[in-house]
Amino acid sequence: MKNTSILNDIASITEIYELTEANGYFMSGKAEETAYFDLYFRKVPDKGGFAVFAGLAQIVDAIKNFKFNDEILDYLKNEKQFSDDFIDYLRNFKFTCDIWAVPEGTPIFPNEPVIKVRGPIIQAQLLEPILLIYMNSQSLIATKANRLVRAAKGTAVAEFGTRRARSFDEAVFGSRAAYIGGCIGTSAAFQSKEFGIPGFNAMIHSWVESFDSEYEAFCEYARLYPDDCTFVVDTYDTIKSGIPNAIKAFDDVLKPMGKRPVSIRIDSGDITYLSKKARKMLNEAGYPDCGIAASNSLDEYIISDMVSQGAKIDCFIVGERLINCASSPLFSGVYKMCAIEKDEKIIPKINLSENVSKISTPHSKMLYRLFDRDSGKAIADVLTLEDETIDETKTFTLFDPDFTWKRKEVENFVARKLLLPVFLKGECVYKEKELSDIREYCSEQIDTLWEEVKRFENPHSYYVDLSDKLWQIRRDLIEKHKGA
Amino acid sequence: MKNTSILNDIASITEIYELTEANGYFMSGKAEETAYFDLYFRKVPDKGGFAVFAGLAQIVDAIKNFKFNDEILDYLKNEKQFSDDFIDYLRNFKFTCDIWAVPEGTPIFPNEPVIKVRGPIIQAQLLEPILLIYMNSQSLIATKANRLVRAAKGTAVAEFGTRRARSFDEAVFGSRAAYIGGCIGTSAAFQSKEFGIPGFNAMIHSWVESFDSEYEAFCEYARLYPDDCTFVVDTYDTIKSGIPNAIKAFDDVLKPMGKRPVSIRIDSGDITYLSKKARKMLNEAGYPDCGIAASNSLDEYIISDMVSQGAKIDCFIVGERLINCASSPLFSGVYKMCAIEKDEKIIPKINLSENVSKISTPHSKMLYRLFDRDSGKAIADVLTLEDETIDETKTFTLFDPDFTWKRKEVENFVARKLLLPVFLKGECVYKEKELSDIREYCSEQIDTLWEEVKRFENPHSYYVDLSDKLWQIRRDLIEKHKGA
Repeated sequence: MKNTSILNDIASITEIYELTEANGYFMSGKAEETAYFDLYFRKVPDKGGFAVFAGLAQIVDAIKNFKFNDEILDYLKNEKQFSDDFIDYLRNFKFTCDIWAVPEGTPIFPNEPVIKVRGPIIQAQLLEPILLIYMNSQSLIATKANRLVRAAKGTAVAEFGTRRARSFDEAVFGSRAAYIGGCIGTSAAFQSKEFGIPGFNAMIHSWVESFDSEYEAFCEYARLYPDDCTFVVDTYDTIKSGIPNAIKAFDDVLKPMGKRPVSIRIDSGDITYLSKKARKMLNEAGYPDCGIAASNSLDEYIISDMVSQGAKIDCFIVGERLINCASSPLFSGVYKMCAIEKDEKIIPKINLSENVSKISTPHSKMLYRLFDRDSGKAIADVLTLEDETIDETKTFTLFDPDFTWKRKEVENFVARKLLLPVFLKGECVYKEKELSDIREYCSEQIDTLWEEVKRFENPHSYYVDLSDKLWQIRRDLIEKHKGA
Repeated sequence: MKNTSILNDIASITEIYELTEANGYFMSGKAEETAYFDLYFRKVPDKGGFAVFAGLAQIVDAIKNFKFNDEILDYLKNEKQFSDDFIDYLRNFKFTCDIWAVPEGTPIFPNEPVIKVRGPIIQAQLLEPILLIYMNSQSLIATKANRLVRAAKGTAVAEFGTRRARSFDEAVFGSRAAYIGGCIGTSAAFQSKEFGIPGFNAMIHSWVESFDSEYEAFCEYARLYPDDCTFVVDTYDTIKSGIPNAIKAFDDVLKPMGKRPVSIRIDSGDITYLSKKARKMLNEAGYPDCGIAASNSLDEYIISDMVSQGAKIDCFIVGERLINCASSPLFSGVYKMCAIEKDEKIIPKINLSENVSKISTPHSKMLYRLFDRDSGKAIADVLTLEDETIDETKTFTLFDPDFTWKRKEVENFVARKLLLPVFLKGECVYKEKELSDIREYCSEQIDTLWEEVKRFENPHSYYVDLSDKLWQIRRDLIEKHKGA
């Protein structure tokens, strides 16, 4: 598997202010000052209890190939505020930062760093669009895919989103993210080839309409694709026309060849009702092995309803509501400076903002996840200073960083570091993974969450707490600035 | 201006079923049969009264460069269902279709074709992802941008979405669409260069945090950028710290240089309140010419509220809610076959579906817009058979295609054809336009709509009617299939 980006020179696609700041750091002699930035998100989409982190492989790939093309450098030359030395710096850009990241497929929670960058402030700043765009897009879709998969309670969910995506690269990386989140495959040829995702076929209405009759359209398809025979049955009338014609075509074309049909697809109407009727008709005609697929603007609530009403569906096909995450389309990732180094000391930094929810967590941090030793379940995440350790042999006191009287003692736990090195001094130390392994890891890690965190309605707020020391630093900084 | 696509070989990014159908047409000898397809959308986003059509230039560009790369052709070779002849056909793909399209920037309404394709069925089918992706993404964003602009009632709206986009090409084409819809410019360097969109700068919080004090951060920025001096003032405390420090830096750095500040930006808190306070403080300090920009998850409703409450804002900066169209993220474009040719006769085709809203309008059609001769206002759109004309000298009877007793007689009107040729027999006849001209045309055309169509709450449903002949053909087809 290659992590080929289908885009050229994406470093050049950036905000003017990123370049103005970078030029500013350069001109004021601050470019090589060491800064720390955190990438995190603020809110779980769809009011869910957790999100799934995805997009890291593309981030790594983009950083390895980070360069500004001549076109954009010429453009900057014409804008008088950029110095020639700065433009030369960009032309010869060499990446030297450290980056730590949570593994792809990990369940993640608001306000905890999922990527941590340490390095020259000018470089760390310029990474912002790459980090945000890849994390936001793929984590959003992986999270949604996992919701659909959980709603389907064991029935397969396939991603059919490419033509409904808002861009070609969203289509490509969206299929990847959907697979990580648990979809069984994709409708897209390129993605199947590029990432090794199982590819799924379908018949569409225009095929049916292009023939003089539905029966003829089905027969011709069966002759051409006897081993992958799947009919869409709602072009004219599912019960009166589509299914009877499908059965007739199976009988007339497939049976003499000794072939079996794969499935029929219902794309409109009351699919729960129609699927039960269809199941009965297919069984009675001797095709109990013919699957029934459902499509038509499905989402996790519709799927959940269909499952609970006993719909006879073997595969849910999800397009626009998955690739566009229509019900909750923002992932709310942000990238904030949390410290700088001066004279080899770390100076914590904070953005206070006028909105409490936008206040950042200062300092260079480590993220731990505490698992119960007996059940294996995740208890809480804890942010500490980077050099703090959590002693597994002692009782650890969790407390809510806002409502500090809410406390909980935990013991008999394992504390796992979640932020792992990806780049060290600019060298990539990330080990590429098979997408199917990321998918499996994702499923295993979601199994460590309590059902209360996973439910759709009012899920339990999983704890993301601060160590004592970190909490005090944060409080002192707030008081310092607000007291001033 | 170049319409460079930043993607390579996008024809290769397609659904497996597009290729299976195409191979099927090829194998069954139907590949060169002439088919007609319509691209249209079903629902106006945000329950609005109209949408803005955008994305045509990218569609034209993509079709001119339509080719399958070797990687995808090799992939198809390995999938046994595709014939070698078909793969060779794709390798040597030559485009020969006719395409008509509504001009970019035109207000459009549900269920009317905005692009019409006529040509060999195999080619027309393969265009689907390109048509849908570019129309959906850019029309969605242009429509949203225009809502924001209308809400701002004359105050500037700038698009700052790149780092919040879900992909790099969405960022690029999103800035283009936002400009068509009426934004004054973009925060993105590449888009400014590529499309000639005015570029806008900003200061961000990390700049402020990287200095020992806010005042120092402002002074250094003012020294570096005395001609483009714009401060973000909410890093610690807008009223107590941000604005006083800004004024002090203007006084201490800009004034001695004889320079004036551009603006301050408020990014959190009660911006309406803060903007009034800020205006007063700036005026009293001798900076009545310093603008005030507002950002922070703004949308058309928040902007509308701020305007009606008298916020002192000179520029609304919109990021995630514009580029992601968070409140209504689906454009619902579809691409449906509406006719085929047999023995030089057009055979109308229909997709009935089990949902009334998904029933397509058959036949090769023309789209007219009727304008009142005196007021210049748009009265209605009318779909006719392609060779029908609308006689402007006679009274024309509009009637609702579903509720046919709803009728309206119109006279003293001009009927303008909205579908104009873009490709003829595969040759591109589209004349490239300056983006600023498209933007101006958009604004003029929206001016032809009645206020009732433009309002946000319960807008009037603009008429999109069928000619008598077309209506009868549609009814006959429904009866034929449903009667069977």
